[in-house]
Amino acid sequence: MEPWRTAIANSDETNIWIRGYDIASLMRKATFADLVFVLHQSRLPTPKERALLDAILVAVADHGAGAPSCAAARLAASGNRESVSAAVAAGVLAIGNEHGGAGADCMAMIAAGVERAQREKISIADAAKRAVDAALAANQRVPGLGHRVHTKDPRVDVLFAMARDAGLAGDGIAFTRALEDALHARGKSIPINVDGALAAVLHELGFAPAAGKFIFIIGRVAGLTAEIAEEHAREQPMRIRIPVAYDGVPPRPLE
Amino acid sequence: MEPWRTAIANSDETNIWIRGYDIASLMRKATFADLVFVLHQSRLPTPKERALLDAILVAVADHGAGAPSCAAARLAASGNRESVSAAVAAGVLAIGNEHGGAGADCMAMIAAGVERAQREKISIADAAKRAVDAALAANQRVPGLGHRVHTKDPRVDVLFAMARDAGLAGDGIAFTRALEDALHARGKSIPINVDGALAAVLHELGFAPAAGKFIFIIGRVAGLTAEIAEEHAREQPMRIRIPVAYDGVPPRPLE
Amino acid sequence: MEPWRTAIANSDETNIWIRGYDIASLMRKATFADLVFVLHQSRLPTPKERALLDAILVAVADHGAGAPSCAAARLAASGNRESVSAAVAAGVLAIGNEHGGAGADCMAMIAAGVERAQREKISIADAAKRAVDAALAANQRVPGLGHRVHTKDPRVDVLFAMARDAGLAGDGIAFTRALEDALHARGKSIPINVDGALAAVLHELGFAPAAGKFIFIIGRVAGLTAEIAEEHAREQPMRIRIPVAYDGVPPRPLE
Amino acid sequence: MEPWRTAIANSDETNIWIRGYDIASLMRKATFADLVFVLHQSRLPTPKERALLDAILVAVADHGAGAPSCAAARLAASGNRESVSAAVAAGVLAIGNEHGGAGADCMAMIAAGVERAQREKISIADAAKRAVDAALAANQRVPGLGHRVHTKDPRVDVLFAMARDAGLAGDGIAFTRALEDALHARGKSIPINVDGALAAVLHELGFAPAAGKFIFIIGRVAGLTAEIAEEHAREQPMRIRIPVAYDGVPPRPLE
Repeated sequence: MEPWRTAIANSDETNIWIRGYDIASLMRKATFADLVFVLHQSRLPTPKERALLDAILVAVADHGAGAPSCAAARLAASGNRESVSAAVAAGVLAIGNEHGGAGADCMAMIAAGVERAQREKISIADAAKRAVDAALAANQRVPGLGHRVHTKDPRVDVLFAMARDAGLAGDGIAFTRALEDALHARGKSIPINVDGALAAVLHELGFAPAAGKFIFIIGRVAGLTAEIAEEHAREQPMRIRIPVAYDGVPPRPLE
Repeated sequence: MEPWRTAIANSDETNIWIRGYDIASLMRKATFADLVFVLHQSRLPTPKERALLDAILVAVADHGAGAPSCAAARLAASGNRESVSAAVAAGVLAIGNEHGGAGADCMAMIAAGVERAQREKISIADAAKRAVDAALAANQRVPGLGHRVHTKDPRVDVLFAMARDAGLAGDGIAFTRALEDALHARGKSIPINVDGALAAVLHELGFAPAAGKFIFIIGRVAGLTAEIAEEHAREQPMRIRIPVAYDGVPPRPLE
Repeated sequence: MEPWRTAIANSDETNIWIRGYDIASLMRKATFADLVFVLHQSRLPTPKERALLDAILVAVADHGAGAPSCAAARLAASGNRESVSAAVAAGVLAIGNEHGGAGADCMAMIAAGVERAQREKISIADAAKRAVDAALAANQRVPGLGHRVHTKDPRVDVLFAMARDAGLAGDGIAFTRALEDALHARGKSIPINVDGALAAVLHELGFAPAAGKFIFIIGRVAGLTAEIAEEHAREQPMRIRIPVAYDGVPPRPLE
Repeated sequence: MEPWRTAIANSDETNIWIRGYDIASLMRKATFADLVFVLHQSRLPTPKERALLDAILVAVADHGAGAPSCAAARLAASGNRESVSAAVAAGVLAIGNEHGGAGADCMAMIAAGVERAQREKISIADAAKRAVDAALAANQRVPGLGHRVHTKDPRVDVLFAMARDAGLAGDGIAFTRALEDALHARGKSIPINVDGALAAVLHELGFAPAAGKFIFIIGRVAGLTAEIAEEHAREQPMRIRIPVAYDGVPPRPLE
């Protein structure tokens, strides 16, 4: 078999490099957010970029034990006490387009919209209007808008304010704001949610659309480990049994 | 890299063999239970052995949407609509020593007890007494005994009756029954549960102890696929939100 | 929290029912393939339907330790010796649209094509031609055609022959064959692969399109358990280390 | 169903708190390493503690595409292109006692040894000697010692030097060093590996033993996301096929 090729990590008998940076230097001088940035963009962030990435990772780490990812991790911890990897993985598996993953679709829409504005020499606002009209015509939701739980998600304004204060609020945030305005103009008041805010800021930070899921997963895994530790420390195995109401075929003979 | 070695499956441009049996012949003449037997024991079961293995796989496939494995699969299906593999895997991850996996430990205890009876020339009943006494002295549960949900699990008697009628009830079932008797003699009335019955019968069928988990997983995966199909067909994404009561530190300032 | 609703399994203190059938009766009279059919279609299969479903489950169970699903399971077994659930789940997670999952897309195409033929009163062959032309115009692959490994997959002919001999070869198989013919007429000789054959036969058996993935997963899990058992029995932990060639940024200082 | 209890996260319509800290404050003032510390210890770390935790998270994030966790993630990404959650989870599942998880066992040994030294009023060195003698008598490996890949792992000295410079090198590091010395005195020169160094430093930081796995997982997930992004960006689906040599039963007829 041919060796697999990679441009991420390399090592020899006594050294490890990540994107060419020596691991010892990274350990001494870089934070974990720096390393996430290096892994995905092959350069260190500026201090302001780092602070925004930290804010995003902090924002998504946990939100309550009852969210699908946390609850799936706890169910696995309840039945499978011997492997914390299994419980973390079960939590990660509940993350998808419907939970934590909308940021990736939103980032793709932002990237396409910003690129279109440049190519067609139209304003960001017009590009957002066209994106909204296309979604409405196709009867599709606009990813990154619409609240799940909160009437007003506290994380959205913080992220946008931090980006503005850092001088990093550019076309990505403008486009996302314009999506909200364009929906409002069409009679739909649907606020930007945390997936949308995260997507807009990650776009400003230079991440590719798939990072909308990756960064959520990295942050949420921290929360999952705490949920699992608490389940082990405070609860009996197999304590969870979801109540179920059967509404299917009544008892019948087997021919 | 050296090729990995395996004694399970082989193929060339136009053929596939499993344990040396041609796939076309297996497809025409073997059932799925036959194949499970071939995969793990490298021979076809007799019709009576096959019927018992089918009974075990049927017994464990599903038991209600609220069990940890089924609930974890549904939570993953709720948040991650795009991958049914992810939902199946989340369900499998909730299977462990506390849920569906006790059969493996029970099989190890049966194998050790039966071997000891032969080696030390003592009766199966005496070997079971010693195993129970050792567990009690170590303050450990005896795996395979104790009901989780049912006061009387309907699957236990059926498995034992089928094994007896097939002429396949041997030392494994005798030892498991003797565990129950030995506990009763020490004042503890703890019935054999489905994990214990499955373990005893799989021992009679010649499976290694790890099969106590493997066979449960194979059977349960069928149930998980039906649970996921129902979640997709009948429920909205993200409909599940477990109620949570917070009992931690009250709001406090961040220094 | 409202109880979750389900029409699959129900139980009380002393009984379990699957789709209304008593578990004891199922254990005595049904095979595992019967139960898979009951779980997904709420009725028992005929003997001929059962034999076809068994043939499909047998066909996909294993194919070699180096396929992504088997290799992922072995890698997990290599690093995480304490949880066989984790290793099975890792194997399941490698199953997707590119590996084992094309049957679901193919079943959706078959269902749409057969429905269109009826609605528009055109022949199955014409419906297949239009499906192929639409795929070619969109520059998309036709799911279920094209060999991965075998120049001639031995499982395809067996499945179609068994369906024909059972009198169960209907529009689904005809449509799939017609896809192959339509591609051939456009200069592309691309044979039906095992995903396509499985999809055609599952359509004849009345399964919904998602079953194209579910049935593959159920069958493959049996193979995964054998791969994991062999890894545990024959190999040292951490014996696997894939050779890698680094082609990224050379060592550089960290400012 | 009773609500689940938790002391981790809480929220209302317009607020989210983690361990009592307002999410907006955390986003503005805390780094991701701070949040990991808050999640597991319910307090913010000091700047020196934070720097050590960052160093550990950075140290374990990636090490090469061929390690079991990275390779399992790539295999899942190869077959299952539609779900990055599935690929991350597959990578996490390869983490266990044999790969990345030895830190948890090592932390348990450190905690027991330090506690014993205090209780029995013996020196840390004597406690380490007894732990080594007990492991040798039981024919067990001492967790956290022994190199896997590197003759001299560069991460070990950096972690210990950083802890010393921060004034945080206490009994945990002393005990781990004494394990190495005690083995050397018995004729076994087995160096501390990264799992052992991570365990010693996490002990100094006040983490519970399970954190030996949790912190490794959090760090490694960052690396997994980069591995998956690279697999998607540079490689064709299903490009991976591990070479296999069959050494099982030759072709044989099916009776």
